[in-house]
Amino acid sequence: MAKQEKQEKQGETFWTDDPAAALSVGPGFVLAAHPTDAAPGFDGDKKAAASALAEGATLLSALQEKFFANSRSGDTRKILLVLQAMDTAGKGGIVRHVVGAVDPQGIDHVAFKAPTKEELSHDFLWRIRKRVPGAGMIGVFDRSHYEDVLIGRVRQLAPPAEIDERYEQINQFEQQLVDDDTTVIKVMLHLGFDEQKARLAERLDRPDKHWKYNPGDVDERMLWPAYQEAYQVVFERTQTDAAPWYVIPADKKWYARLAVQHLLIDALTRMNVDWPPATYDVEVEKARLAAS
Amino acid sequence: MAKQEKQEKQGETFWTDDPAAALSVGPGFVLAAHPTDAAPGFDGDKKAAASALAEGATLLSALQEKFFANSRSGDTRKILLVLQAMDTAGKGGIVRHVVGAVDPQGIDHVAFKAPTKEELSHDFLWRIRKRVPGAGMIGVFDRSHYEDVLIGRVRQLAPPAEIDERYEQINQFEQQLVDDDTTVIKVMLHLGFDEQKARLAERLDRPDKHWKYNPGDVDERMLWPAYQEAYQVVFERTQTDAAPWYVIPADKKWYARLAVQHLLIDALTRMNVDWPPATYDVEVEKARLAAS
Repeated sequence: MAKQEKQEKQGETFWTDDPAAALSVGPGFVLAAHPTDAAPGFDGDKKAAASALAEGATLLSALQEKFFANSRSGDTRKILLVLQAMDTAGKGGIVRHVVGAVDPQGIDHVAFKAPTKEELSHDFLWRIRKRVPGAGMIGVFDRSHYEDVLIGRVRQLAPPAEIDERYEQINQFEQQLVDDDTTVIKVMLHLGFDEQKARLAERLDRPDKHWKYNPGDVDERMLWPAYQEAYQVVFERTQTDAAPWYVIPADKKWYARLAVQHLLIDALTRMNVDWPPATYDVEVEKARLAAS
Repeated sequence: MAKQEKQEKQGETFWTDDPAAALSVGPGFVLAAHPTDAAPGFDGDKKAAASALAEGATLLSALQEKFFANSRSGDTRKILLVLQAMDTAGKGGIVRHVVGAVDPQGIDHVAFKAPTKEELSHDFLWRIRKRVPGAGMIGVFDRSHYEDVLIGRVRQLAPPAEIDERYEQINQFEQQLVDDDTTVIKVMLHLGFDEQKARLAERLDRPDKHWKYNPGDVDERMLWPAYQEAYQVVFERTQTDAAPWYVIPADKKWYARLAVQHLLIDALTRMNVDWPPATYDVEVEKARLAAS
């Protein structure tokens, strides 16, 4: 426990600069101008990143437990991590290696698939609203309402005017989450076109990876420029101070994992949580227990 | 990967006997006759258990990934782990240290609390049915429908005749799950009365544990014999071949964790899953990808 406390005070020791600043989407942001193979704020190699990730995991797990503990005595804060990316960009690896370091009791992971018939009969936020995290939880959306302005836009799954309205509906929805004490962290894993090809090729080469591939992945790949443009529009219309976007270079899987871990650690650190005080009289309870 | 394959073949190396047999609830089972501090099938100490748990975690994680992979190509099997116990028996630690070793994408963890007003307006299985795991998932119920014949019985939350009917309703419900390709594993963590006192005392002694205590824990403790009897009735009426119970001595946290891990490994091993074959023509896809 002493070691853990020390680490919490010290924070992450391995960043040369706060990566959050470099990853933020500011005014005039142009996705195409951002490299996919950079590693802003981190000087080491893959091996150094592995030990940094382990250090960060201990810290994240410790902070999360305090965060969760406070929800038991009335703290209503929650976190929502939104993960968006092209196929193979590494969403799954982030869930496994970053989110997986946290107690499953404090995680609410939702993988949004193509909407069902019932979901399609409601407005696009209907199924999303049902899955927002409760107090003390870290919600993780693996894909999200942004699909409705990404594949929705690229494949024209709704009339253009309707899609156009969705950006503002998204902003309003996210503002409601923030008003309800949610820290919203929106992440786009920014993968290179060539790197995607290499990763898809690996899935086709390795029988233990065949299950991760499906022919639709190449169909989507053919529409790469349209998707990049759709993301650009997403950033222009849904980057808000309340619910900010982070664009994370994803060609180096280890970097993307470290960066997302950092965003979670940063959010928890800024909440400044400590163990909550007892909501009962400790001495009275000791006496009751002793008598039992 | 080669190392992983080897371990999968080898299985767990650390058991002296299959613990599942010793932990099963057979005809004539008497809860009170079972020690809470035993460690059937495991010869080592706490330290040996820690390294065994790490070995098992690698194996469990590898088996789970194959299991999950198969669901993508139509395998409808799923697992449901039901955890029941008196307070402080270690359900949370099992979720954190056993379930937490598995990719969060393959876990559907549900902590059932006291039912809400809406839930109470439906039959007791209504809220449970909504949360059963889907194909390829390991569902974890931290408390479950059994609360309705445990606290429900002890605190007379429903008329005796209604509670009496619930056992058969539970058996029918679980048979339906099994018919729907669910492997149901029901675990009762069997904690000693004195050990509970020590654990509650620790929660009262340590400010970082205060949040885990609530005065209701001692209220329930006062009803210990009634709860033990209610569990005894549960075993007599809901032990079935389709959905078996395991009673796990829980005074040694490390043993209970190893034992639950084993039950999951055992269930996955018996499914005999391998990487699923591609559901598409690999060479065709390679050509399409190359051209993209």
